[in-house]
Amino acid sequence: MIGIFDSGVGGLTVVRALRKLLPSAPLLYFGDTARTPYGNKAPETIRRFALEDARLLKDRGATVFVVACNTMSAVAVDSLRGRYPDTPLFDVITPAVQAASEGDPRRVAVIGTRATIASGVYEQRLKAARPRVDVVSQACPLLVPLVEENQLDSAETKRITRRYLSPVKQRGPQALILGCTHYPFLKPVIAHKMGKTVRIIDSAEVTAQAVAEYATAHPEATRGSGVTLLFSDLAPHTEKLALAWAGAGVKVEAVPLEVIEGKI
Amino acid sequence: MIGIFDSGVGGLTVVRALRKLLPSAPLLYFGDTARTPYGNKAPETIRRFALEDARLLKDRGATVFVVACNTMSAVAVDSLRGRYPDTPLFDVITPAVQAASEGDPRRVAVIGTRATIASGVYEQRLKAARPRVDVVSQACPLLVPLVEENQLDSAETKRITRRYLSPVKQRGPQALILGCTHYPFLKPVIAHKMGKTVRIIDSAEVTAQAVAEYATAHPEATRGSGVTLLFSDLAPHTEKLALAWAGAGVKVEAVPLEVIEGKI
Repeated sequence: MIGIFDSGVGGLTVVRALRKLLPSAPLLYFGDTARTPYGNKAPETIRRFALEDARLLKDRGATVFVVACNTMSAVAVDSLRGRYPDTPLFDVITPAVQAASEGDPRRVAVIGTRATIASGVYEQRLKAARPRVDVVSQACPLLVPLVEENQLDSAETKRITRRYLSPVKQRGPQALILGCTHYPFLKPVIAHKMGKTVRIIDSAEVTAQAVAEYATAHPEATRGSGVTLLFSDLAPHTEKLALAWAGAGVKVEAVPLEVIEGKI
Repeated sequence: MIGIFDSGVGGLTVVRALRKLLPSAPLLYFGDTARTPYGNKAPETIRRFALEDARLLKDRGATVFVVACNTMSAVAVDSLRGRYPDTPLFDVITPAVQAASEGDPRRVAVIGTRATIASGVYEQRLKAARPRVDVVSQACPLLVPLVEENQLDSAETKRITRRYLSPVKQRGPQALILGCTHYPFLKPVIAHKMGKTVRIIDSAEVTAQAVAEYATAHPEATRGSGVTLLFSDLAPHTEKLALAWAGAGVKVEAVPLEVIEGKI
């Protein structure tokens, strides 16, 4: 079973992308909605939460981990690999950096939450892959709440997106990384603003592709079926978003924090 | 010393209002930015966090509590009074409901976060005060992120506010409660949309008035001076907001979660 986890609902874009590529694979998602957002928390707290999230999925039968969260991908991957050395683990940053680096672009843009951009993780990884690349980073803090309010192409969303992206576009990047799992929902608006010559790297899509390649080569890791979404807090709005975003035929379940806290 | 606490930065509107009324009173604020938002968490979790927050302020010398947070005001006031029966405690809901009920209005509107509106707390309290009042409730989930991005009168903020308030205005309320500590920053935009005949109840202002009345009658409770703002996570953006919102001459300090967790 493929275990996918995130601090909230954003990682459901990875679930959606995976279901397109692997329609019959068994997926188990955990969104830590009771403790979301992780982005502004201390690294040691994020690592502890990541280990607790992974333990929950492991206990429920996950054999592959997908860290569908930029914050955990930036700071908790080594801790997770240390704790689960035999479990294949995919994060959302590595495939996006790899896809953006293809064709040796001179300039790559990255958009994300304030915490992701401040961490400089994409810039570091892009420069590690292509030392001479120029990186343009832009925090877009209002895009997550707009997506969570399902304002995917309202006039306000278009205006706010344009305002964030105008200075980015002026710098003339060849590629733009959607460095937040919520942003794939805004891809049409973002792509329209950036123009046809800018490659848009959808981190949910490229992550799902990496997982799908692995699953195709290791069919034993993805036996079973069914899609289950677990949340540590299941408010009505969360459930509505989850069902809308993950697609039809999923099971949604609440997991109390007491089951998770302190168990790494 | 007056101890004011909130799940994040919103309660700083109460600090701001208190400083206007009591310029020399000693204020100690705690914003639990590491665990914000509280709104979507389970009531028992919120009660535990509230007791931990209060303990921190008590340990640092608070002699009066101001619960500057709608979520804690709705679910944790009884627990706090039970744990600290001798400490005067003010919440943000009671003074707003009282102010809105004055003049026996037929219809009162309340705006707030999705969690506050779903809790029905204002509706219950308003009906307890005036059984025949008609309550119009409207969740405005995008207003908090807009305020936290300091978009207090941008074209987008005006459009989004208009969209939320149009159905409220159509119902013709005599008063509108700003049922979220962030909203006082949007009072000009909101008042303009609602028109001159609708009384706008600013919960930060009416709460500060109640505290100031108490402090004037009990000068011994507010001896000392200085304004200190504590945060469980002090990201650069939080510090910037805190300094801008609370006014000049405050001290900002980070308090690690380990100091708070488990100590009630």
